[in-house]
Amino acid sequence: MIEYSRSTSTDVGAFLEAEGRVAVMPFGALEQHGPHLPLSTDTLQAEALAATIAERISGALIPAMPYGNTWSNDALPGTVSLSADTVTAVCSDIALSLERAGFDLLVVVNGDFGNRLPLHRAAEAAAARGGMPVLVLDYPGLAEIGDAVKETPWAAPGLCHAEEIETSLVLAIAPELVDRERYVAEYPQLPADFGLRQMALAPLSDSGVFGDPRPASAEKGNRILSHVVEESLHVIAAVRASLSAKKPR
Amino acid sequence: MIEYSRSTSTDVGAFLEAEGRVAVMPFGALEQHGPHLPLSTDTLQAEALAATIAERISGALIPAMPYGNTWSNDALPGTVSLSADTVTAVCSDIALSLERAGFDLLVVVNGDFGNRLPLHRAAEAAAARGGMPVLVLDYPGLAEIGDAVKETPWAAPGLCHAEEIETSLVLAIAPELVDRERYVAEYPQLPADFGLRQMALAPLSDSGVFGDPRPASAEKGNRILSHVVEESLHVIAAVRASLSAKKPR
Amino acid sequence: MIEYSRSTSTDVGAFLEAEGRVAVMPFGALEQHGPHLPLSTDTLQAEALAATIAERISGALIPAMPYGNTWSNDALPGTVSLSADTVTAVCSDIALSLERAGFDLLVVVNGDFGNRLPLHRAAEAAAARGGMPVLVLDYPGLAEIGDAVKETPWAAPGLCHAEEIETSLVLAIAPELVDRERYVAEYPQLPADFGLRQMALAPLSDSGVFGDPRPASAEKGNRILSHVVEESLHVIAAVRASLSAKKPR
Amino acid sequence: MIEYSRSTSTDVGAFLEAEGRVAVMPFGALEQHGPHLPLSTDTLQAEALAATIAERISGALIPAMPYGNTWSNDALPGTVSLSADTVTAVCSDIALSLERAGFDLLVVVNGDFGNRLPLHRAAEAAAARGGMPVLVLDYPGLAEIGDAVKETPWAAPGLCHAEEIETSLVLAIAPELVDRERYVAEYPQLPADFGLRQMALAPLSDSGVFGDPRPASAEKGNRILSHVVEESLHVIAAVRASLSAKKPR
Amino acid sequence: MIEYSRSTSTDVGAFLEAEGRVAVMPFGALEQHGPHLPLSTDTLQAEALAATIAERISGALIPAMPYGNTWSNDALPGTVSLSADTVTAVCSDIALSLERAGFDLLVVVNGDFGNRLPLHRAAEAAAARGGMPVLVLDYPGLAEIGDAVKETPWAAPGLCHAEEIETSLVLAIAPELVDRERYVAEYPQLPADFGLRQMALAPLSDSGVFGDPRPASAEKGNRILSHVVEESLHVIAAVRASLSAKKPR
Amino acid sequence: MIEYSRSTSTDVGAFLEAEGRVAVMPFGALEQHGPHLPLSTDTLQAEALAATIAERISGALIPAMPYGNTWSNDALPGTVSLSADTVTAVCSDIALSLERAGFDLLVVVNGDFGNRLPLHRAAEAAAARGGMPVLVLDYPGLAEIGDAVKETPWAAPGLCHAEEIETSLVLAIAPELVDRERYVAEYPQLPADFGLRQMALAPLSDSGVFGDPRPASAEKGNRILSHVVEESLHVIAAVRASLSAKKPR
Repeated sequence: MIEYSRSTSTDVGAFLEAEGRVAVMPFGALEQHGPHLPLSTDTLQAEALAATIAERISGALIPAMPYGNTWSNDALPGTVSLSADTVTAVCSDIALSLERAGFDLLVVVNGDFGNRLPLHRAAEAAAARGGMPVLVLDYPGLAEIGDAVKETPWAAPGLCHAEEIETSLVLAIAPELVDRERYVAEYPQLPADFGLRQMALAPLSDSGVFGDPRPASAEKGNRILSHVVEESLHVIAAVRASLSAKKPR
Repeated sequence: MIEYSRSTSTDVGAFLEAEGRVAVMPFGALEQHGPHLPLSTDTLQAEALAATIAERISGALIPAMPYGNTWSNDALPGTVSLSADTVTAVCSDIALSLERAGFDLLVVVNGDFGNRLPLHRAAEAAAARGGMPVLVLDYPGLAEIGDAVKETPWAAPGLCHAEEIETSLVLAIAPELVDRERYVAEYPQLPADFGLRQMALAPLSDSGVFGDPRPASAEKGNRILSHVVEESLHVIAAVRASLSAKKPR
Repeated sequence: MIEYSRSTSTDVGAFLEAEGRVAVMPFGALEQHGPHLPLSTDTLQAEALAATIAERISGALIPAMPYGNTWSNDALPGTVSLSADTVTAVCSDIALSLERAGFDLLVVVNGDFGNRLPLHRAAEAAAARGGMPVLVLDYPGLAEIGDAVKETPWAAPGLCHAEEIETSLVLAIAPELVDRERYVAEYPQLPADFGLRQMALAPLSDSGVFGDPRPASAEKGNRILSHVVEESLHVIAAVRASLSAKKPR
Repeated sequence: MIEYSRSTSTDVGAFLEAEGRVAVMPFGALEQHGPHLPLSTDTLQAEALAATIAERISGALIPAMPYGNTWSNDALPGTVSLSADTVTAVCSDIALSLERAGFDLLVVVNGDFGNRLPLHRAAEAAAARGGMPVLVLDYPGLAEIGDAVKETPWAAPGLCHAEEIETSLVLAIAPELVDRERYVAEYPQLPADFGLRQMALAPLSDSGVFGDPRPASAEKGNRILSHVVEESLHVIAAVRASLSAKKPR
Repeated sequence: MIEYSRSTSTDVGAFLEAEGRVAVMPFGALEQHGPHLPLSTDTLQAEALAATIAERISGALIPAMPYGNTWSNDALPGTVSLSADTVTAVCSDIALSLERAGFDLLVVVNGDFGNRLPLHRAAEAAAARGGMPVLVLDYPGLAEIGDAVKETPWAAPGLCHAEEIETSLVLAIAPELVDRERYVAEYPQLPADFGLRQMALAPLSDSGVFGDPRPASAEKGNRILSHVVEESLHVIAAVRASLSAKKPR
Repeated sequence: MIEYSRSTSTDVGAFLEAEGRVAVMPFGALEQHGPHLPLSTDTLQAEALAATIAERISGALIPAMPYGNTWSNDALPGTVSLSADTVTAVCSDIALSLERAGFDLLVVVNGDFGNRLPLHRAAEAAAARGGMPVLVLDYPGLAEIGDAVKETPWAAPGLCHAEEIETSLVLAIAPELVDRERYVAEYPQLPADFGLRQMALAPLSDSGVFGDPRPASAEKGNRILSHVVEESLHVIAAVRASLSAKKPR
């Protein structure tokens, strides 16, 4: 495993000779996460997952993208958003650059809901032109482990924002950035079509919280991280198996 | 309910005065569907669903888009594909045109897997600029009714292509276009990462079929259509409730 | 001749082995055509012409595009418009897809004035990159046959909109969609520069009619269709002769 | 009348207070015109016409664009081409800039066949967004005056390239740039579909000439210029009448 | 040396056989230059420099672009501006066209401050794709010769606009276009961050002058031209040396 | 001063009420820096400068962009590059997002040469549309302090890449990432036109070093940082003075 941001060109050259050419990129966001979690919450989570994944697959960890497509939280202080097209462009450019450098696969660990469409669009564009595959991971296994770990209800199926899960994750990764004094539970009354179409989140919750952060703990966060890492590794293993099966043909 | 392609400007003017301003657009594709189903299979299905939905909600049915983003089947004869960006542009232009004409909602009934990302991208763009909402429906309830109806296994979870489900649907909608003599069952050996990332379908199946069309029937097709229509209506009702809740504020 | 939307991939495969690889695409619009003609008037006409042309040249008829660049009628109910750039993109994508599939020529039968510039632009782009030729037909011979057939004057030279010619055409193609009770003649006072520069049509006519539909008949419509088909065939024959002359070189 | 390139900001300020705000822009090209005419032939012609037109209407003459969309002559030495999109962008930007400065109309005097589509596209875009009108003039009346003046046949209907007409025009405008020793007549055997679709010109003529320059004369050139100017003035008068009719409404 | 606009295709063909394939393009602007200098000031200067440079290096002089990116003077009469993107597109298209014609180098003599970013962007894009090099010259040596020649102070370091330097240059190139009666000196009070970030010029000076044109003379203009030509030739010589060094490898 | 990535939405809300609304964004790159410096060298430097600047002006520090436009080093291991257009888009999106949030100024601390054009282009675009000003700082004062501090010669005027200056900076900021065992001095023979036009760096130096890192020290690094910070503060002070002068008008 190699961490690009802390390594030299010489180190990378040696690594690329010796090991599987899989790059792992955390894609985060700078987005409001209530009164108690840092704006970089999504980036921290993606980074933690990506680092462990890169280590487990002896991959190349490249720097976390600290901005994402977060228009849906634009109305709350601290959110700084890229457009969807720019998120796609960043991912496509990096994939092309790695492809030219001889990589076999880019794994994008996506930390923000708003990045899903633009990142998968970049992945599809790569597939449609027959380029190096791009695999976008949106926290595989999160729903299952969430069900297992959470003591409080989901604000909506699959919706984690500044509540027990996200707070547990930041407690596990960067506890010094969690302001426990400010824990607020809010279960916004969601519109009838929540989850059925794209809509802005910011107007729905006064606090920016969707759920209850109070029972969060680092231990829960670590359980969640472990599970998502394992599920991610299964997906990556399947992709690598598929890619190496293709080569001999 | 009004069908734009068969109505005059005068008819539309009267309709828009009287009824809810919801437009329903089928978005299809021109894509290989094995030796026995027509290239317009996706369009026919989307059109049939959209017509029933428009009738049930007294909406305006606008013409079916007969081309989609079908790069993944480009290698087989008969597939004629738009790029993903063009699919997004068609949907965005039509949404804008309807918005200017005073509509409240565009419901897109999507008949092709490859259109999902580009259509949802158009919907998100509309939401991000605060425009008229666009609701993209990808056959809601299909998995459930498929499980209930199918006598043959799925080639992969959720994968319907020229097999029992799709053949039943065309038997229900346009039986004269189904060549029953040519039924072929094929369960391709799918790569380990099928469904985990975007990949071309054409190289995976010799016949272009993914499953077994033989037990298909019009009666099954009608059951599937009914179920998907009902599920679609639930979603649309939720969206309309949400939109009318917003207005008084 | 083969009609893509009603044929299977297998049929297309066989057809492409045996016959000349010319595709014929009707490009229509969804546009106000007065109180008595359907919004799909342009699409119906282009489709009828294209079907006969495809039959006569043993070509491949691909589905009609039911939307076009109709900003000039946006102000009247029922018009749903694409931007000029999107019309160009649809045509260019389809030309590229057919080129990859081995076709020699795409004939676009254009049913709407507003599509002219964007379709010819797509054709020029194909020529400039040395791609498969795209031939755009804008009703060749219409002025001559119009002069021969019309009993009422033109609203302006070459201007047909919901008047005797267009009404005759729809009477010939889809008489059930013509509302004869609502025939209205209107000869708008056109601005001095009509036809000299691009301008919106909708503000010029109260009824949306430009001329007099009353003497229209299916028989006239058929005469017009026949003439335009013959003229189209001459053009296509010239292009094919030119293309086959080029090959041996 | 004011010539922007030779006038100061102060002059323009005074002019815009006093006179009709119509700008006239020659749009030329840098393109092969046989062994005897300069590469700037199209620019010279457009400039001469535009200068007279601007004088006659007391308009503002802005500088000639010396490059155009000339891909069809790219294969012969001296042709330097812009893409069609760039021609559109130049025209659209200038129209917008003049609109902001308070002009009522931009008249584009187009000197090159390849600029037609991209310039009309810019004009249509201006009309579609309700901006300042753009009038593109493609030598109105040229066919008539050509028929009256020419002693040699046309290489094809309406095709003037480095033959009697174009040579006469340059003899009238800039005789020092015509190399009379090098006159060559060539009537290329044109493909059957010449004029029916876009095609490259360069491969068709060995000399780059399409016709016979030998009977050219400055006197003929002046007759042609006069006629095209008069026809252009009629068109402009119609547009201005139409625009001023609109204002009081 | 060959001047494209005055030469024939045949001349260019012969020239390209015999001499170094370097093209020189003046890139100007149409921009307010106070009460006494013509709007084409930047174009005239770039053209004069480019003509001499082309002569000295036996290069091909191609026509001057008479419009540039001059948004910063949009508010004063006579300025007609392209967008930055269009300036980049014009330069990129011409570079590509010359590259296809077999040139080794395009030298762009830039006459307007606003063109710097967009022209260098075109040059960088050419370098990044490994295309024919594009060298953008922004009056090399102007600061030095200005210091030597000027009798009046600079309005700001390196800022020449309608003052002693620019007036001297036009007096040397086209004295008939200078209105000596209207000389006005203005030293605007510049904001504290002038030169540190992009800002509009027009609001800063009532007259549009930045400095004092009164001591201008043709003799000074010629000294400036000579110096900038010599500095430009040094730069070009360095580039050509570098390019020919590369070839044998 | 507030550091967005470590702060909550609530903190930002309070900060924005109380203090000057200036955001500071480090824009870095992931680029080869020889055998001894990390790929994130440019990002580390920009981040260190930006943090101090933000503190000194009580600004909002937003996350560092860890990728830039580094095509010129693409050929060496570890460089991962965005296109120039994507760099512009990231900066423009963030500026727009901050503008909507009520900021007065975005200061971009640029750490990579290749980002200059695209970042200044974003700044110009903001100015041309009259948006929130964007100030791009390219290490102001670096040449002066470099001359004062360096014991070894510059590889070329103003060129710092993995030599004494850059190594000193990383020794001051993140000494644990410097591999002192691998110090290599290389003074590549630069082509005659180095610095005169855009060219790739990677082919010029075997080691990726341009100069001599051996006399580097943290103390020198701190002197350089201090000087560049002070110069940056002068520039920012000038911009803020200018902006507040404008408001009362």
